[in-house]
Amino acid sequence: MGDMQEKNLNTISFEACQELDARDSLGQFRSQFDLPEHTCYLDGNSLGALPKATLPRVQQVVQQEWGRDLISSWNKHGWWDAQQRVGDKIALIIGAGPGEVLVADSTSVNLFKTVAAALQLNPGKVVVSERANFPTDLYMLEGLIKHLGRGYKLRLVDSPEDLFEAIDSDVSVAVLTHVSYRTGCMLDMAATTAHAHARGALVVWDLAHSAGAVHVDLTGADVDFAVGCGYKFLNGGPGAPAFLYVAKRLQDKVQQPLTGWFGHAKPFAFEPSFEAAPGIQRFQCGTPPIISLAALEVGVDLMLQAPLPAIRDKSVALGCLFWRLMEQECSQLGFRLASPAAPAQRGSQICFAHPEGYAIMQALIELGVVGDFRAPDILRFGFAPLYVRYVDVWEAVQGLKLVMQERLWDQPVHRKRAAVT
Amino acid sequence: MGDMQEKNLNTISFEACQELDARDSLGQFRSQFDLPEHTCYLDGNSLGALPKATLPRVQQVVQQEWGRDLISSWNKHGWWDAQQRVGDKIALIIGAGPGEVLVADSTSVNLFKTVAAALQLNPGKVVVSERANFPTDLYMLEGLIKHLGRGYKLRLVDSPEDLFEAIDSDVSVAVLTHVSYRTGCMLDMAATTAHAHARGALVVWDLAHSAGAVHVDLTGADVDFAVGCGYKFLNGGPGAPAFLYVAKRLQDKVQQPLTGWFGHAKPFAFEPSFEAAPGIQRFQCGTPPIISLAALEVGVDLMLQAPLPAIRDKSVALGCLFWRLMEQECSQLGFRLASPAAPAQRGSQICFAHPEGYAIMQALIELGVVGDFRAPDILRFGFAPLYVRYVDVWEAVQGLKLVMQERLWDQPVHRKRAAVT
Repeated sequence: MGDMQEKNLNTISFEACQELDARDSLGQFRSQFDLPEHTCYLDGNSLGALPKATLPRVQQVVQQEWGRDLISSWNKHGWWDAQQRVGDKIALIIGAGPGEVLVADSTSVNLFKTVAAALQLNPGKVVVSERANFPTDLYMLEGLIKHLGRGYKLRLVDSPEDLFEAIDSDVSVAVLTHVSYRTGCMLDMAATTAHAHARGALVVWDLAHSAGAVHVDLTGADVDFAVGCGYKFLNGGPGAPAFLYVAKRLQDKVQQPLTGWFGHAKPFAFEPSFEAAPGIQRFQCGTPPIISLAALEVGVDLMLQAPLPAIRDKSVALGCLFWRLMEQECSQLGFRLASPAAPAQRGSQICFAHPEGYAIMQALIELGVVGDFRAPDILRFGFAPLYVRYVDVWEAVQGLKLVMQERLWDQPVHRKRAAVT
Repeated sequence: MGDMQEKNLNTISFEACQELDARDSLGQFRSQFDLPEHTCYLDGNSLGALPKATLPRVQQVVQQEWGRDLISSWNKHGWWDAQQRVGDKIALIIGAGPGEVLVADSTSVNLFKTVAAALQLNPGKVVVSERANFPTDLYMLEGLIKHLGRGYKLRLVDSPEDLFEAIDSDVSVAVLTHVSYRTGCMLDMAATTAHAHARGALVVWDLAHSAGAVHVDLTGADVDFAVGCGYKFLNGGPGAPAFLYVAKRLQDKVQQPLTGWFGHAKPFAFEPSFEAAPGIQRFQCGTPPIISLAALEVGVDLMLQAPLPAIRDKSVALGCLFWRLMEQECSQLGFRLASPAAPAQRGSQICFAHPEGYAIMQALIELGVVGDFRAPDILRFGFAPLYVRYVDVWEAVQGLKLVMQERLWDQPVHRKRAAVT
């Protein structure tokens, strides 16, 4: 009887998870999302969920603004200013000032723009990044360096521990992702930026897995440039326009190479020569996709209703719960924690490695628990604090246990799919 | 009596315009657009009108695909292939083959990609364009050349007549707009391309004002590269994603510099090095804005229901009618034709110059006739054959006559606005 009580004290129950939800200060936000029933969605770090306010807003943009007011909407409905308006809202989420953030293009294109701008400021010929960085960032660096053809070298480090050593005085720019897409490992933005500055290097931070999920203070960390993604934790919709940040102190010193008319000082003067707009606007290029941009704004507005510290606190709590439940329910099933154990070093996701990871995730998704798989063996679970409940974490771990105990992953369909991946 | 009859024979009446509409083989298409009442919209060359099918499709993408199926929609609902699928549809409109057109980014970014790719193929150090080209094209060339810093020179010609002479054997690439945004002047694509090829130069054509409006035969003209716009005659919605074309024979010989993960041969292998996808896919870069892309597809699908020759024929007929009515109704009011007189040298717009152009257009828009103004003195009227009626042309000219005869343009509000432009 004493033993059982002790077990109960240490064991997390479904009821305990329900209790956590009942006390959750962000609990009311879930009702503002349109989530599928019978689905436990832990992939908001890949594609955020649909806010209920998005559909009416998109309808309004299509029907009223485009359909009724047509071309006049560029002024009448603020299409012209939308990139800067939504940028200023995102600035509030990532600790930047007004006029420092812009919504534009894709993360990849914004990386090109910011790194190209950064390279103008520094004589160094080395660009540092992590080999485990999100591949598109590496691909864009490769493309940029090849295109420039001025002897720039890409120096890739194999581990975050090697970063400081790699950022030496030969380095022009370090291009780093704050939270790893694969492991959730979070770098120390302030310390890394300070180290780079001390060596005369600039840093471009990729905030794809940070914005709206973890504490980001670009001003406090004296960050030079950053880029990020609208369709993950900001819930901006599939392929939502991305954002970029340029510190005020640098904006008028640099010119990015994609000098389109939206970055011109007087775009409607139709002058044949380019004159860069002052401030962040010079990082705009072509005409932005207004419908997708309107959807992004809804996601950002919704996030701004929540206190940012509460978002981070709940993210940590969800991650810790997931890990503890995995230890409690699945400790003998071959999973290895692939994320940092310390919450302070982790973004809003938990990853476990398993040799059968791909087939396991397929089987899990069929049970209605949606995470995702990243090669070679990572099962990735993201926690979007605005709509993920503690009971979802419970369900996810129970699902994983069932998949393993019943060997649901070991079915021809999953095997077959795994073989072609 | 004889005089009157002769006058009537030469005079175009409102009834004659109605008669033209009644016989219009494209007449039924107008009902497939959601146009504002009491508006005569002649600005589809700036922002195309809203197809009725767009709203339900966008609702479906938001509610069902994003909201219900979430991340699985990348495969399940063809998001992953959308850029190439819609590209293949646009190919049918511009005389290109399957796998030669891609929807991606903005026109400006696509110009950067295609010109950068073209420069790799040719040793020449000169890039030719027209000083009257749409400014963003010139700005992008300026940015690209500065960024490359390898001694490239931009040679701008002042008149289309000087083009052939300017495209000499020093030229690497000519970047030309098929139909001028300002005057509607249309270049001879086949002859110019052949001339450039004979001098060892490549041509990048900007089809922003051509696609969906005039006859374009990229294959027949042996075109190398092209870019174009989704939000004008293709009715893809505000800031719709743009498109680009690369001739099959060139695709695997070049690599554009914006090497994002959507252009990788195996994007989900997450390899640290870039390996270009075969074919047109290597011209993709980052994640595309799916909601805006879905809206574009509706506009393209609608256009594909109409026979392309009928579109061009009606475009010419609308333009000729406008000009004739201007001569009939407004010949003494100070307007000067600013477009080529010959229909074969004109895109789907007619422009008139007037020193008070800005204020006149403001007053005209207040009457419900929407054209637009381009500095310094151009009143621009675009004819989108799928929804513009012959009676709209009548109304537009009557509106212009009223604005002039009643001096509606000479009111403080229009004066004031003109002063700040």
